[in-house]
Amino acid sequence: MLALDAMGGDYAPREIVLGAAAVAGPALKLSLTGNPDEIEKALAGADAGARKFIEVVEAPEVIGFDEEPAKAVRTKQNSSLVAACREVAQGRADGAVSAGNTGAMLAAAMLQLRRIPGLKRPGLCTILPTPGKPTIFIDVGANSEARPVHLQQFAIMAGIFTEEVLGVVNPSVGLVSIGEESVKGNELVLEAHALMAQSSQLNFYGNVEGRDIIRSVVDIVVTDGFTGNVCLKLMESTSSLIVEEIKRAARSSLLAKIGGALLKRRLNEFKKSIDTEEFGAAYLLGVRGLVVVCHGNSSRKAIASALLNAARASRQNLTGKLERRFARLEAVRRQ
Amino acid sequence: MLALDAMGGDYAPREIVLGAAAVAGPALKLSLTGNPDEIEKALAGADAGARKFIEVVEAPEVIGFDEEPAKAVRTKQNSSLVAACREVAQGRADGAVSAGNTGAMLAAAMLQLRRIPGLKRPGLCTILPTPGKPTIFIDVGANSEARPVHLQQFAIMAGIFTEEVLGVVNPSVGLVSIGEESVKGNELVLEAHALMAQSSQLNFYGNVEGRDIIRSVVDIVVTDGFTGNVCLKLMESTSSLIVEEIKRAARSSLLAKIGGALLKRRLNEFKKSIDTEEFGAAYLLGVRGLVVVCHGNSSRKAIASALLNAARASRQNLTGKLERRFARLEAVRRQ
Repeated sequence: MLALDAMGGDYAPREIVLGAAAVAGPALKLSLTGNPDEIEKALAGADAGARKFIEVVEAPEVIGFDEEPAKAVRTKQNSSLVAACREVAQGRADGAVSAGNTGAMLAAAMLQLRRIPGLKRPGLCTILPTPGKPTIFIDVGANSEARPVHLQQFAIMAGIFTEEVLGVVNPSVGLVSIGEESVKGNELVLEAHALMAQSSQLNFYGNVEGRDIIRSVVDIVVTDGFTGNVCLKLMESTSSLIVEEIKRAARSSLLAKIGGALLKRRLNEFKKSIDTEEFGAAYLLGVRGLVVVCHGNSSRKAIASALLNAARASRQNLTGKLERRFARLEAVRRQ
Repeated sequence: MLALDAMGGDYAPREIVLGAAAVAGPALKLSLTGNPDEIEKALAGADAGARKFIEVVEAPEVIGFDEEPAKAVRTKQNSSLVAACREVAQGRADGAVSAGNTGAMLAAAMLQLRRIPGLKRPGLCTILPTPGKPTIFIDVGANSEARPVHLQQFAIMAGIFTEEVLGVVNPSVGLVSIGEESVKGNELVLEAHALMAQSSQLNFYGNVEGRDIIRSVVDIVVTDGFTGNVCLKLMESTSSLIVEEIKRAARSSLLAKIGGALLKRRLNEFKKSIDTEEFGAAYLLGVRGLVVVCHGNSSRKAIASALLNAARASRQNLTGKLERRFARLEAVRRQ
């Protein structure tokens, strides 16, 4: 069972509910949190066969995108977003998914689910659609400030995620810096590099530069949440700007128009392959429960894909494996 | 007179020297530092009319891209790169340009030219070819660590640069963060935001997010050298990756091939418009002399364009204006 915040997102509840209905079935039961009337109305447009695998959990309040996360979570305990996390905290669901206010979702997850013992900071990781093979990128914004040990722990968590969810054996880890050599970087990176290089938990590649993030140089790219968030948004914006410019070029003359028309299908395929809406889900690693945040502009397809990925992570017992790894590390540390 | 490191860059000395020959004239005299024989050989292929506006300064040593900057600058005082800065330091040239080892150029500039009094840290700024109007981006890597006052001073310097070199009146300044609100960001950004918001020297817009860097939201984007360097390399790599993918798409079927051929000219124009080789020059603001570093892969065209921009900055007395501004600020501070 996964809990889905039916009211979070630019196109909620309709697109969220239809995304749920597209994947609900005997192997994937869902509980939708939100306004029951609105959820039922949206469900009326969906395949009736899915209905019996969907529960509705009443949660009348909604947290908006502009609300201050910590305050919103504290004051709106009956919001669809907090309710989704509560379903997990109280053992009724294995994971919570929301396309609502990311900050509020992180705050609700921390409050309701708490940190994995031994882990200092949860990290938000996402899957970049890089050529050849996907790249795991952590932290894309759970923490605005980081210490070296946080980066090392992000790498360990992302390693387990990559093995369990993407099936990559012994994934390689790169640390974002301003030069490949171990002496290049700011204080945080220099110390984190030293820590990670001597960690037996990691297949540490060394530093990677900005250009390498999307070049599939490593399986996992680790950085602090400030740099990660800025980079993620910059990548999204660079890709969509370039696609816009190419479309403009393809309208600029008659020949270019014909050329553009002939290329259209390929360009659309390409656009889709880099579209963050298709890959826009991020996983909050490090809380005691599976928590997935989707892009605010998620379509039903994005929600369906996030639910399928979350279901896979849940079947693989991602959270349990993260807990066990950190319990072992804590035991070693205390010896 | 501008001093140009003839031996720095992937295509040195040939492309560097031909770039120089393309713009040298009565209004732009150049001194080329490096191996005189090699420089003369390269000049033999250039327009003879330019020759009399070009001096050659013998500097037999070369600093490679892999050398440790501070050490290389200390031990190779007779390198073409150090010699170019020395021409400025000793008053024979108004500015130094190099496509060689960036770190070494920064170290040589700091050593030979020293900081502008009142300025705490020089910053490396570059012009991003963003749609509609260019964006000034500072610091792209002169400093791996920054304090709030450094960011504020980068903004002041970039403001003068933008006014003098791009002719923009009262340019707006954005500070890179992970949210638009003033309470969003890491400690450095929160403090820098407060400082910049109350600075009468700045037309401060507030925070900008990663996506806004290339969206022409502001004239000047300020960040620390770590974030700036990672972002710059990420942008370069995202653009070139997307252009590669589109070329691949345009070869994928017969119709796509025809479409690609029809679109080719527009795509090439577009590629050029975002090509960092055409815009790859960065200006080290804050030392007592004009210092321009070019992309290692600079062609003659990139060198020619960097020289013309440097000449403009020199005519506008950019360095003198920076010095005067900081002298005034120092005077106010001491009152």
